[in-house]
Amino acid sequence: MQIIPPALERLIADLTRLPGIGRKTATRLALYILRRPAAEGRNLAHDLMVLHDTIHLCHQCFTFSETDPCAICGNPGRDSRLVCVVEEPGDQIAIEKTGVFRGTYHILHGVIAPMDGIGPDELKIRELRQRVASGQVDEVLIATSSTVPGEATASYLAEMLQDTKVRLSRLACGIPMGMDIKYADEHTLARAVESRQSVPGRT
Amino acid sequence: MQIIPPALERLIADLTRLPGIGRKTATRLALYILRRPAAEGRNLAHDLMVLHDTIHLCHQCFTFSETDPCAICGNPGRDSRLVCVVEEPGDQIAIEKTGVFRGTYHILHGVIAPMDGIGPDELKIRELRQRVASGQVDEVLIATSSTVPGEATASYLAEMLQDTKVRLSRLACGIPMGMDIKYADEHTLARAVESRQSVPGRT
Repeated sequence: MQIIPPALERLIADLTRLPGIGRKTATRLALYILRRPAAEGRNLAHDLMVLHDTIHLCHQCFTFSETDPCAICGNPGRDSRLVCVVEEPGDQIAIEKTGVFRGTYHILHGVIAPMDGIGPDELKIRELRQRVASGQVDEVLIATSSTVPGEATASYLAEMLQDTKVRLSRLACGIPMGMDIKYADEHTLARAVESRQSVPGRT
Repeated sequence: MQIIPPALERLIADLTRLPGIGRKTATRLALYILRRPAAEGRNLAHDLMVLHDTIHLCHQCFTFSETDPCAICGNPGRDSRLVCVVEEPGDQIAIEKTGVFRGTYHILHGVIAPMDGIGPDELKIRELRQRVASGQVDEVLIATSSTVPGEATASYLAEMLQDTKVRLSRLACGIPMGMDIKYADEHTLARAVESRQSVPGRT
């Protein structure tokens, strides 16, 4: 017997498609929305409805933006000759929050994952090569995640850009700030030892 | 500097209002929706838009339903003289899933919580009293949660219905099925000892 009304069931099914949301959470969210005033649900619906019409990809860095070029590519105060390559717009948001990066970005929109059928042609990699080939880039900072596919993508990019004159760099790996050394995992600790940095003022 | 486009920022703010969804999860969900085809986002938007127009409260049990009476109240196979009182439609869904309850329901839409300004008049309690006073109910099974406000609401209902001829019952409390006794919390274990049940066929 169908206890959940069809309209509610459809919303639950929609929500279950979102990442990290199972059937129980989706039901809880849908019932919450139903209990709240109709205006709140309609507001969320409206913001969803206009989302894809309002936001497009910046033609230069391929981030999500309402303007083209995006606010960063169009900002003369940012160093367009330093390009930080990230997997997703969410990674760019995280780096921007630090406030220390003054260059521009290049969003790949994924990582190379042959098992999922994602090769270089499915990502914005050709566009990165063209951007570098145009001679307007001095340094490419590869900021893919330190996961297996992230590292594989970084290696691919490094090899692809090997015969160009561009300077290549990678985010530093090591002990996270505030972490007790005895709780660091062995791979991170090994990397931190190998990549040890000299103390300023000493030789 | 605004790195997140305003339309995306509005969606993130909407999602943050949902229970259990913080800023990070909301950002992850919004970026996911943006990466998926526009049709998927619009589908979710549509289902949200029609939700409150399609679903109303059953006039008898006050559950969410597209029909009035709801599928359970309108089913002659259900025992309308046995009424299970729950806090929320989600509780009703959980009980229906067990498949063992053949009566009808009464949804309070909350619990008595004086600190939050929620007294009996804010809940469907007057309607329960009327339903019982009409003489069409033999047993009221109080199935509020075994939390402090749930127990307080149950006590209030029991007192309110004391001078009626209706039979009152409460969900059994005890050790959850499959639980190792040494991991049960002391309150649950104390309740299980106090409410011990006699073994059938013995005296």
